[in-house]
Parts: sequence; structure tokens; C-alpha cells
Amino acid sequence: MMPRASVLAIGNEVVQGRVLNTNAQYLGRRLTLLGYDVVLSASVPDRMELIVEILRIATDRFSSDLIVTTGGLGPTYDDITSEALSKYLGEEHVVNEEALEMVRQKYVARGLGLTPERIKMAMMPKSAKPIPNPIGTAPGILVKKGNKLFVSLPGVPSEMQAIWEQSIEPMLRNASQVRISEVTITVKGVMESVAARIVNKIVKEKPKIYVKTQPKGIELGSPVLDIYI
Amino acid sequence: MMPRASVLAIGNEVVQGRVLNTNAQYLGRRLTLLGYDVVLSASVPDRMELIVEILRIATDRFSSDLIVTTGGLGPTYDDITSEALSKYLGEEHVVNEEALEMVRQKYVARGLGLTPERIKMAMMPKSAKPIPNPIGTAPGILVKKGNKLFVSLPGVPSEMQAIWEQSIEPMLRNASQVRISEVTITVKGVMESVAARIVNKIVKEKPKIYVKTQPKGIELGSPVLDIYI
Repeated sequence: MMPRASVLAIGNEVVQGRVLNTNAQYLGRRLTLLGYDVVLSASVPDRMELIVEILRIATDRFSSDLIVTTGGLGPTYDDITSEALSKYLGEEHVVNEEALEMVRQKYVARGLGLTPERIKMAMMPKSAKPIPNPIGTAPGILVKKGNKLFVSLPGVPSEMQAIWEQSIEPMLRNASQVRISEVTITVKGVMESVAARIVNKIVKEKPKIYVKTQPKGIELGSPVLDIYI
Repeated sequence: MMPRASVLAIGNEVVQGRVLNTNAQYLGRRLTLLGYDVVLSASVPDRMELIVEILRIATDRFSSDLIVTTGGLGPTYDDITSEALSKYLGEEHVVNEEALEMVRQKYVARGLGLTPERIKMAMMPKSAKPIPNPIGTAPGILVKKGNKLFVSLPGVPSEMQAIWEQSIEPMLRNASQVRISEVTITVKGVMESVAARIVNKIVKEKPKIYVKTQPKGIELGSPVLDIYI
């Protein structure tokens, strides 16, 4: 049984399509190759009740063992992912001293002090462990609750990836034994509705193999198929 | 009160990050500019129980008035969005004669006949209305259930957009009176943690205006901010 994962992007700019959600693609890819069954990838606006709701749905309704959020960790009024996580977990939302030290050092290095907006980036659920952000200011957040793991990362893709690669993926890789093999074959001149019959036969005979045809050309005229195995 | 919309992408290739979900961005953008409050944008794998579950969540838990799905309308065994919609709605899943005629004409024009895989693309919930696909073979699906509207579109972006622009957007535009104004200002040399204080003041004074700062540069060093109003 593969462990289940959900990827949640928090931000009006994502649901409203002002930015393309490349974070979901990056995390979906990485989690799949680590052996996770990614059952849900969702985004919601920066609204407390909707963030708490999607955390609950990912955990309870989609039975996720790992929940990764992106976005909403910054200094502005609508960056409320950390507070929503505290609320969902039923934990006090407090200044984490270790996180505060991380934030302080980033600004002190530039001759700047702490302000309420900067201190806000160090506020986390009481049981959280801050994760160093090698290129930005807001630390990531890690919470283990029962047998479920919650990871909150910044929405800026370069910061999200830096934290993922430096801290999260090494941790998950140590815990996983699964290895995934995959290959994509491109076929020209075969319509998907013709290939469907052959693919249906294969997947019935070999239930452990996943085959997916992906139309790339024009079904009628010049069909091109990517066959993913 | 703005009507609420959810955008649901169905497909293993989306949640697993083999493709970038540009459909969610396109639809999030279009729906927002039509005056919809996009409360959820989610993707799930091609599995019956997960598709039915996310339809239920979008409708009940996120109180969506409009639910738009993309993907899973093709001829292969794992294209099950239409069947999942029938199951969720509690309707018989039947061959729609109007849809069958649309599919038949596409293949007949190329001297090809109907096969079970091609007929499958004409199967829909009993109360559904098929929507012509101007450039592909699988028709879109429209179901009105009580005061909720369900729209299912193909996952191939060019087909999805063609159906959207030809049929769905004109229909929704007629029903909506809302117009949205927006502008983005780019500011260099101001840190987000400094701008946060000013933005917080504005949104407290003018609750109908939405202001979001989007960091583009490096907070410490060469900060660049997009300010979206």
C-alpha cells in the first residue's frame, strides 16, 4: 500500500489564474517518484475557513498521510496558511523561537531589525519545527501529528524548491523503499480510439502496470499519441 | 453575493505532474473576470471514488454554484469523468443520441465508423446536454441540477478553450451582471515586509478593494514587488 499525499496551494493569485501553479507540478512529480500516491492537488483562496476546510478534506476525506502546502507564509495580512494550520490542528499559534532566530539573522545580515510583519513569519503551530529557507526569509513549517505529516512551504517557486531539496526530500527518501519506473513512447498515425482497444486489453492482463495514452496531434487527420507506461 | 465556482481537473498526468495544469489557470482567469468567486481549483487521479468525492466536496463543502471539470472524456478505459458525473448525480449513464450524432459525423467525415470506444464518448448522465466540440471528437457535457450547473470539458487545452469560447462563456456572460476592474503595479526597491504595513492599512479602510503584493525579486538585496489591486 503506497502512502497517500495531497498538495495544497494557498493563494487568490493561484485559483484566479493570475499565476500558473508550477509548484503543484513540481511537487506532484517529486512525490510520485518518491512512491507517494498523490490523491489530491488543490488550491484555495487566502480565506481562513477555506484553508481549514481543504486541510480537513485532504486529511479526512482523501486519507492523506502527507499534506504539503505552498504559499501564504509571507509577511502580509493575507498570508494566513500558518495560522490556518494552527487552527486546523487545534494548536496554539505562537512565535517559534528557533524560527524567529532564522528570520532575525536574515534581516540583521542586512542591518535591518524585526518588525511585527517580520515576526509574523516566525509564528507557527505550537508543536511545529521550522525548516531553514536557504534563499528567502520565511522558514518552512513541519508538523507531525499522529501518523500524519504536514509540511508548509513558501509560494515563491525558487524558495519552495530550495527547502524541498535541502530538507524535505532527503527526509522522505530515507523513509521510503519504493522505486518507480516509467517510460513514454510517442506513436504517430494511430488514433487514440483505435489504441484504446489494445491498451484496455493490456491493463486487464497486467493490473500492476499503468498505461495511459495522451493525444498530442489531431485524432482525425494526423494523430500523435504519447503512450506512458 | 458573487456566485461560487470550482474548477476540477481529472487525470493522473495532472496530479502526478507529468503535465502542467494550464487549464486551471485559463478557467480561473475567465471565471474571475466573469464575476465568479473561484473557491476551489482541484485535481484528482482517474479513479471513480476520488472523482465522485471531489464533485461532492466542490458542491457541498465549497457551496459551488458552477462546477467545471476538465479531462477524462476520451475513448480510453480510464476516461471516466462522464460516468463519475452520472454516479455523483444519481442519474442513469446512457448514450446521448445528440452526442452520438456529433461523434458519428466527426468519424464519418473521415470515412470511419463507430466503435465501442467511440460510442463511449457519447455516453452521459441522462439529463445532460452535449456541447459541440469544434476541433476534437469528444463533446462537452452540460448538466443543470437544481440551481447548480455542471460543465465537463475535454482535457486537451485547445479543445477545452474552443468549447469554452464558443458555448460556455457566452452562456455565462448572459447570466452575469458583474464587471471586474484590476491593475498590477511593479515597484522596485521596496521590501514586501515594509509594504505589508501600508497595504494592511489600505485594506482595513477600503474593504471592497483587494490588494495583494507578490514578491518577484529578492526581499533582502534587490526587492521587486508586483502590487495587484
